[in-house]
Amino acid sequence: MRRLYHMPLSPFCRKVRLVLAEKKIEVELAEEKPWERRMDYLRMNPAGKVPLLKIDDLVLAESSAIFEYIEETHPEPPLLPRKPAARAEARRLAAWFDDKFHHEVTANLLYERVNKKLMKAGYPESEKIKAGLRNIKYHLDYMEWLFESRGWLAGDQMTIADFAAAAHLSCLDYVADVDWTRGQGVRDWYAKIKSRPAFRSILADLVPGFTPPQHYADLDF
Amino acid sequence: MRRLYHMPLSPFCRKVRLVLAEKKIEVELAEEKPWERRMDYLRMNPAGKVPLLKIDDLVLAESSAIFEYIEETHPEPPLLPRKPAARAEARRLAAWFDDKFHHEVTANLLYERVNKKLMKAGYPESEKIKAGLRNIKYHLDYMEWLFESRGWLAGDQMTIADFAAAAHLSCLDYVADVDWTRGQGVRDWYAKIKSRPAFRSILADLVPGFTPPQHYADLDF
Repeated sequence: MRRLYHMPLSPFCRKVRLVLAEKKIEVELAEEKPWERRMDYLRMNPAGKVPLLKIDDLVLAESSAIFEYIEETHPEPPLLPRKPAARAEARRLAAWFDDKFHHEVTANLLYERVNKKLMKAGYPESEKIKAGLRNIKYHLDYMEWLFESRGWLAGDQMTIADFAAAAHLSCLDYVADVDWTRGQGVRDWYAKIKSRPAFRSILADLVPGFTPPQHYADLDF
Repeated sequence: MRRLYHMPLSPFCRKVRLVLAEKKIEVELAEEKPWERRMDYLRMNPAGKVPLLKIDDLVLAESSAIFEYIEETHPEPPLLPRKPAARAEARRLAAWFDDKFHHEVTANLLYERVNKKLMKAGYPESEKIKAGLRNIKYHLDYMEWLFESRGWLAGDQMTIADFAAAAHLSCLDYVADVDWTRGQGVRDWYAKIKSRPAFRSILADLVPGFTPPQHYADLDF
């Protein structure tokens, strides 16, 4: 039995869901609100974070470690290239989104607008929202620059880097914080990755109290 | 030619240095102050962070991606176990230190005490110092709990998890923020890992303006 403990608008959970779906691994979804600090959950993951993947008695935590486990045990289709240097580039960009983008953009926008409300932890700070909106431009421009010479983020094949980026951007798109007119390369890439079957269940998720913009689940946005 | 761009008191750089030294890979060290935002450096690593490993024309960034590259190209001695579940556990704990511990402890203590001064970015905030000192206790207790059933952090062999943890703790030990009397298991583990040849060059590093405590480089502390 495989169960993924997740939150619908967590980019780290979405990344793992995309990986599982791309590899056609079926999994039961269980929503977990980490801020409730359920003892049974903390016993499985003392870090108190989502996602957590439970496979029978095996408990896997930290999205990067979960990804590597899935890649090692279900290598098809591969989400890392074959050569070490190309693998490093895919992992570098996945870490770029999960660390730098997360810190500079996702935390400032999504966590201020959504998580604070869900956690009843006060109102969004306008300084953070402003910083997030300023920062996302640089990240979109960097992606655009990469797409000038690449078909996918890390090179000529789709990798974990694309799923990490798409996971963050899809969460931000839910709260209408992505300017898709900023670069044609980014827009084309997102249309391409959004139309994969793996994306379907993610785009169908709704979070009570938050309505995504019209184009959110539209494959031809 | 291999060159590692680093900072002496960056846990991420120390982790990579430990990995390189453990695998007996010689590397030239170049100190880089990321906050100076040198254009030549930003061209290599637009993330503007250290470490960065340059091997001839190949540029590798993000410490987790650098580690996986080294592990794949120089598998001996292995710093990940053989079985996927055990590899996931080692990667989970490496991520624990590089994300959770970093955020809750290292950023509050080391960055407040040292990086702010180096960057001429003001004085340490006492609230952050207090939070860091409070948080490190829980982390040391979690490590102690793991050592009740394990010889090394992630199991019965030394892995990247031990190097990630030791990298953070050695930086904090430089500013005397680790209470080594809190748990005998942690103390024994640190004595064991500190006495490895790989640790030597790290313990020899001095940062002008900051004097480590007497026991810092003492293998029998």
